[in-house]
Amino acid sequence: MSAPRLGILGGGQLGRMLALAAARLGIRCRCWDPSPEAVAGDVAELICAPFDDARAMETFLAGLEAVTLEFENVPVALVEKLAAKTAMYPGPRALSTGQDRVAEKTLFNSMGLETPEWRAADTRESFERACTELGLPIVAKTRRMGYDGKGQAVVRRAEDVGPAYARLTGEGVEGDETSRRAGLIVEKLVPFTRELSILGVRGRDGTTAFYPLVENVHRAGMLRRSIAPAPGVDETTEFHARASIARVMDALGYVGVMAVELFEVGGRLLGNELAPRVHNSGHWTIEGSASSQFENHVRAVMGLALGSTAMVAPRATMVNFIGRMPTRELLALPGVAAHDYAKLPRAGRKVGHATVLSCDPQTPDPRLAEVERLAEAADKG
Amino acid sequence: MSAPRLGILGGGQLGRMLALAAARLGIRCRCWDPSPEAVAGDVAELICAPFDDARAMETFLAGLEAVTLEFENVPVALVEKLAAKTAMYPGPRALSTGQDRVAEKTLFNSMGLETPEWRAADTRESFERACTELGLPIVAKTRRMGYDGKGQAVVRRAEDVGPAYARLTGEGVEGDETSRRAGLIVEKLVPFTRELSILGVRGRDGTTAFYPLVENVHRAGMLRRSIAPAPGVDETTEFHARASIARVMDALGYVGVMAVELFEVGGRLLGNELAPRVHNSGHWTIEGSASSQFENHVRAVMGLALGSTAMVAPRATMVNFIGRMPTRELLALPGVAAHDYAKLPRAGRKVGHATVLSCDPQTPDPRLAEVERLAEAADKG
Repeated sequence: MSAPRLGILGGGQLGRMLALAAARLGIRCRCWDPSPEAVAGDVAELICAPFDDARAMETFLAGLEAVTLEFENVPVALVEKLAAKTAMYPGPRALSTGQDRVAEKTLFNSMGLETPEWRAADTRESFERACTELGLPIVAKTRRMGYDGKGQAVVRRAEDVGPAYARLTGEGVEGDETSRRAGLIVEKLVPFTRELSILGVRGRDGTTAFYPLVENVHRAGMLRRSIAPAPGVDETTEFHARASIARVMDALGYVGVMAVELFEVGGRLLGNELAPRVHNSGHWTIEGSASSQFENHVRAVMGLALGSTAMVAPRATMVNFIGRMPTRELLALPGVAAHDYAKLPRAGRKVGHATVLSCDPQTPDPRLAEVERLAEAADKG
Repeated sequence: MSAPRLGILGGGQLGRMLALAAARLGIRCRCWDPSPEAVAGDVAELICAPFDDARAMETFLAGLEAVTLEFENVPVALVEKLAAKTAMYPGPRALSTGQDRVAEKTLFNSMGLETPEWRAADTRESFERACTELGLPIVAKTRRMGYDGKGQAVVRRAEDVGPAYARLTGEGVEGDETSRRAGLIVEKLVPFTRELSILGVRGRDGTTAFYPLVENVHRAGMLRRSIAPAPGVDETTEFHARASIARVMDALGYVGVMAVELFEVGGRLLGNELAPRVHNSGHWTIEGSASSQFENHVRAVMGLALGSTAMVAPRATMVNFIGRMPTRELLALPGVAAHDYAKLPRAGRKVGHATVLSCDPQTPDPRLAEVERLAEAADKG
């Protein structure tokens, strides 16, 4: 009887935080990542090989009780193979839905979650027609492989329709042929009040639990700050968000943590996208909840009971550090929890985050102002 | 600029929890442990070699910013060598004090912390004289290498004095020649009300912070339960405990977390022993404090600012699991934090712990009763 083992596709910061949560529960993790710099390798076994390496798959699988993933852009074919051999969560269906903006919006709409009006566009013709039908401004996105604002273009003027199509398809995204061929989605640009997200977790037995709606602030396509719970959300809105993600998870037979990003438009919630994995807007749960998103994801995929998602303070604020992590300075701020992913500094790279719990959300927190100041400085290099 | 590295002598559960806390701060740990089963190896680099292996020392030291330890029974000679080459905390002086019950009681007394009356005894003659002078009952202990109640004998009757001496010296303790030669300490057996402990942390710059006095329940020489804060402690007692450990840390030029175990006798505190390391009676701080003992130890030895020791709930209760860890059952209890050290089950072995935070210490907590029931069952095999 040795410790149970969990495999993780990907070994970035999400894999690292999953492995740290798993370790507390006595579970050993083994990550598979093509990069030798994958930071989960500091705290877990790391198999460093391309995802199409069949021998690496055998090595990876040996003795695992279950496999999960930390990012959704892994090949569905690999996940299908793994699902045939072991408990693989999320499975191919959830993953392929999460990889395709058309599939995810179709699912949202069928589950009663409104979205901005959208059209799929596979040709220049259908793209131009979509722009006309929806009316400018629109946002055009590659159906696949976009993240952190990459593979997107906002089109506000008729003369920009053609160039946007050319840029998103002709030049490709991240040099990936598949995404180029997969086509685009065109969405009506909605004048949203703010961006929210909801995180849910579903166990192998279908049990669900939810973290409160979170308010997210993005800049240059990257998440900068999450505030939990999102201020000024009424019970009906909260209930609608939970019911929506619950229906989505049930429909997919989902196991693990899922995040759904939402736009708040007037009093309405519109679904933007889903992430079939732990999510940056849930990092606050490490300090802010009885059980973090990482722990609950591990519990779910390993077939353990879900942990309490209750918040332990009236407010938690998470600030991302992009570029460089000023850990020493952050640790000098009392009560600030710093998470340093041990990555080499690089412009535009998420290298860490900090969480501040507040007992009194009405009073401005000087520590938080200082954390924000450090985050601004880190981003500037 | 790669991640800073911390070396840890020993790779048991304390090393494992230190490595988990360090990882959050972006610090990589490398443990050195003679056993290949050392559980810190799941989450950190593990050098597996005897402590007198000179080549292993070179491998261990490569690229480290600092070295610490997770148990005090490492050779002082090794720590002296390491201290000559790197930042080694605690240093040889603190370690040798912590290894010798006579040295630690002498230090306590000189720092104004009373102890049970005691005598050093190196011969049968001096042992018998000590028993006579102190008056029975006494507790006799080997000066070195005792832990979890091993290497101790309570003597209540005159006819047991001789056999106790023979057992503690003749048979040796843990088969260790050094401890046999080092002699014994004889202490007056005090009718204590309860056992308490205080944990302090001291940074490289001399800054200190303290966790509240904790009440500890032992059985068969092993810690079973810690309750933080210890119920019914007045401010004067709390202050006296903090001042005492602060003086001890200052006197030793100590860096890191230190624990002092205390007896409460009437309204007085008597020093029992010190541990120059993180301590089992501080495991509750992982969930119960803003910064855990593990995080604060890492911060101290790495020269970072100390973190807040403020409690995040009115009460935290930690229960040890000895023998076998019922992780699945514990995780089914809402709000119970389970820590599974991923050790193979074995009678008498600490394999995990669970912490329960309570908002209302006055009301009995049914979850805690269930945790205790599981702990009893685990201990029985």
